[in-house]
Amino acid sequence: MDIEALTQGVLDREARAVARAISLVEDGRPELATLSAGIYRHTGSAATLGLTGAPGVGKSTLATALVRAARAAGQRVAVLAIDPTSPYTGGALLGDRVRMQEHATDPDVFIRSMATRGHLGGMALAAPEAVRILDAAGFDLVIVETVGVGQAEIDVAAATDTAVVVLAPGLGDAVQMAKAGILEVADVFVVNKADREGAPAVVRELRQMLHLGPPRPWDPPVLATAATTDEGLAELWSTIEEHARWADASGARDEKRRERLLREVESLGAERLRLELTAALQADADLLARLAAREVDPYGAADELAGRMRA
Amino acid sequence: MDIEALTQGVLDREARAVARAISLVEDGRPELATLSAGIYRHTGSAATLGLTGAPGVGKSTLATALVRAARAAGQRVAVLAIDPTSPYTGGALLGDRVRMQEHATDPDVFIRSMATRGHLGGMALAAPEAVRILDAAGFDLVIVETVGVGQAEIDVAAATDTAVVVLAPGLGDAVQMAKAGILEVADVFVVNKADREGAPAVVRELRQMLHLGPPRPWDPPVLATAATTDEGLAELWSTIEEHARWADASGARDEKRRERLLREVESLGAERLRLELTAALQADADLLARLAAREVDPYGAADELAGRMRA
Repeated sequence: MDIEALTQGVLDREARAVARAISLVEDGRPELATLSAGIYRHTGSAATLGLTGAPGVGKSTLATALVRAARAAGQRVAVLAIDPTSPYTGGALLGDRVRMQEHATDPDVFIRSMATRGHLGGMALAAPEAVRILDAAGFDLVIVETVGVGQAEIDVAAATDTAVVVLAPGLGDAVQMAKAGILEVADVFVVNKADREGAPAVVRELRQMLHLGPPRPWDPPVLATAATTDEGLAELWSTIEEHARWADASGARDEKRRERLLREVESLGAERLRLELTAALQADADLLARLAAREVDPYGAADELAGRMRA
Repeated sequence: MDIEALTQGVLDREARAVARAISLVEDGRPELATLSAGIYRHTGSAATLGLTGAPGVGKSTLATALVRAARAAGQRVAVLAIDPTSPYTGGALLGDRVRMQEHATDPDVFIRSMATRGHLGGMALAAPEAVRILDAAGFDLVIVETVGVGQAEIDVAAATDTAVVVLAPGLGDAVQMAKAGILEVADVFVVNKADREGAPAVVRELRQMLHLGPPRPWDPPVLATAATTDEGLAELWSTIEEHARWADASGARDEKRRERLLREVESLGAERLRLELTAALQADADLLARLAAREVDPYGAADELAGRMRA
């Protein structure tokens, strides 16, 4: 594969090049390092928006509405739907991309599901690189949609400029979210399907839980939407814009970006060292024999191995 | 803290020492390395049983029934309930230990919930060390109960000799489990609450999904239980024993133990190196400046950092 041509294609905003570049991320191909080095100088101008919530809360419908709002504001917008992939089955869950069809012919809209099977470190490391590709390809807004509210999804949501957490009556209640740590990373809460019974109670419960927490420089608002009837969607868009302005002016956005870049470099470095450690352990017949004979315990063996790599 | 006395207390099967040792694991205390080295020679005789499934399927009730069966067979038995802990909220979910009260006064039964807040690498690294403490303390059977069916819980379940996956009608359907990769790690399936509507359908659906997979040396049986009425509990216990005999005779158990020990040593070593990498990055003002100026991309920075640690 000609990585230089691919890199140029991404910078030239060619949809096919962007799609192929994201496939490299998905598969964790070694050429990724060259691509990453080639595009990095051209990143940093896209705003990123995380969209997280339990399955069934209506994230895809909201994403479609946000794409519409961004287009109305003259922005080029990309949606990256992160699909959880099992290391065992290797299957990827394709989200309901069908609903996005209204944007299918718009060249300034790019929609892509991404599995993270091959990438070391899973979606937490694959997502930021895919976002940078979209950033380098000149998208003004990148919406990162995750399925579910597990730790990995929370980490991905936390790594965007504005993290929107979506709830719906009867799904993904606030107590569960508090346990998962999602309350702390959200910048905006949306209670979708607001026309359903129980929605006002979810809004109330959420606001109460937020008041129990420590005060934060940005107080995350709780909005009610009904994506199917457009209720609350204009307010959601203006709230997202308001948060972006606040994060820009306060320095919170740059601080968050700097922090997550450091975490990413650490994780990438740790994954490399882990591969070397695995190879070193497999090759160390003596250490394996002593482990099997219980002459050295796992902590001691790990210390020996890590120490030897440093030497 | 006197770690030598604590180690001796564990080997002398003192309940208080065992509880304190598990607290060391929970908090990820540095003394853990000494304790681990002191007990490791005395481990390897306990059988381990994983009990995994979505919240509400009745795992605790089943655990209680299994404790009763193990006691009837003359075994000393420990239950380790792994509580998911958020890195953000730091809160631990205490399971419903109340149901275990029938065993509260039995000195040959040890029940403990464990959060994994402080341990590097989370529950995947904390659980095996806690299991070894219980093993060294002379328990014949260690039941590891996890809450939920996320990747971390699956990893913990997969790291036991016999992984039992529990389902119930209307909760945690088989398709979700297939996506999560749990079908591949289960040795025994239990459809609990078999007296409820929909239970036979869950059994049927599960058997169909299992038939779609590749043939395995041990074909995981699907049992129906109603823990509240004791239905199927004797069969569950005898199936678990049957699996243990097969795994012993076939060599599958020793192979699985050897494999998970290697993975654990790798993970422990990788966590150590990661800490050093974090410190190295924080101290490297030049690299941080070049990252900020986009002169080096995250992959390139990770390579530099990992390379320097090796030198």
